[in-house]
Amino acid sequence: MNCAIAQSLDQIGDWWTLLIVREAFYGSTTFSAFQKRLGIAKNVLSDRLSHLIETEVLVRAPTQPDGERESYLLTEKGSALLPVLVALMQWGDKWVVGAGKAPVSLGDARTGEKLAQIRVTTEDGRPVALEELAISPGPGADRAVRTRLETAAIDRSKLAGKRPRLRRQRKSRSS
Amino acid sequence: MNCAIAQSLDQIGDWWTLLIVREAFYGSTTFSAFQKRLGIAKNVLSDRLSHLIETEVLVRAPTQPDGERESYLLTEKGSALLPVLVALMQWGDKWVVGAGKAPVSLGDARTGEKLAQIRVTTEDGRPVALEELAISPGPGADRAVRTRLETAAIDRSKLAGKRPRLRRQRKSRSS
Repeated sequence: MNCAIAQSLDQIGDWWTLLIVREAFYGSTTFSAFQKRLGIAKNVLSDRLSHLIETEVLVRAPTQPDGERESYLLTEKGSALLPVLVALMQWGDKWVVGAGKAPVSLGDARTGEKLAQIRVTTEDGRPVALEELAISPGPGADRAVRTRLETAAIDRSKLAGKRPRLRRQRKSRSS
Repeated sequence: MNCAIAQSLDQIGDWWTLLIVREAFYGSTTFSAFQKRLGIAKNVLSDRLSHLIETEVLVRAPTQPDGERESYLLTEKGSALLPVLVALMQWGDKWVVGAGKAPVSLGDARTGEKLAQIRVTTEDGRPVALEELAISPGPGADRAVRTRLETAAIDRSKLAGKRPRLRRQRKSRSS
């Protein structure tokens, strides 16, 4: 389906790719820094970096003073992945790592305040839960998307009363 | 590194896995619905569904009236992925698909309002950009995380003045 999620995942939907972007957020810029910090095989790293440059998430920059041939900097498109990574980290802190065990804390460097939990809201700040979410064709919807979303509307209406006993888990039982 | 992003990606960091979660958000519940709508090979789907049940993103529910052996419903943990998927969709709409071409539009079903852009903010709603983000050890930080974040702080301070000419792209040039 012609969906922005699928198309985004084409560009960043790979374990290593998002971890490379995380490392770039942490300030890594050189091949050796990415390689050392991720413990990733050189050929895999080289492949993923090429892909990230091709999709303009990273850009190659000229020689660095420390002797590395080139460095890799986040573009505006790459920096714009911050909400995705923060949402993913917050989900992991709560549902995978577990309460009170967050390995990394994010805040505002200017004031020391912690970041708010990322939420899905309307423009005026009202939270929207999954059950309250309207999913409709956008300006770029083709016929396949329209058909798919009609089916989705039917499926979702059938589901409306059927989410009574979602288990409340704090942490995954798997490793 | 013992990071919630890496651990989250262990659970959902696979192209198909996140698309299955998207389909569940769209109301798909049965093996055949996921299979048909994603065009995914049965053995791959079966593997990913097992993984999502193991990590408690989905839960198996009893026999459905339509004759399928079982259905798959989002748990609370699974539903909590909504901000991740919305952030990913919004990023894709802007940076991959391009302005005015969003295939899917998300809103509040109760009022018809559109969703706000997901942003990284402090508790009182002030936006925090990547350059303003403080990344520090959380309560669950081990020695490796602490060491890594010390290095990151040095790297990031070196980078501070070096992001002057990020290219402004609206859309990827790659396919």
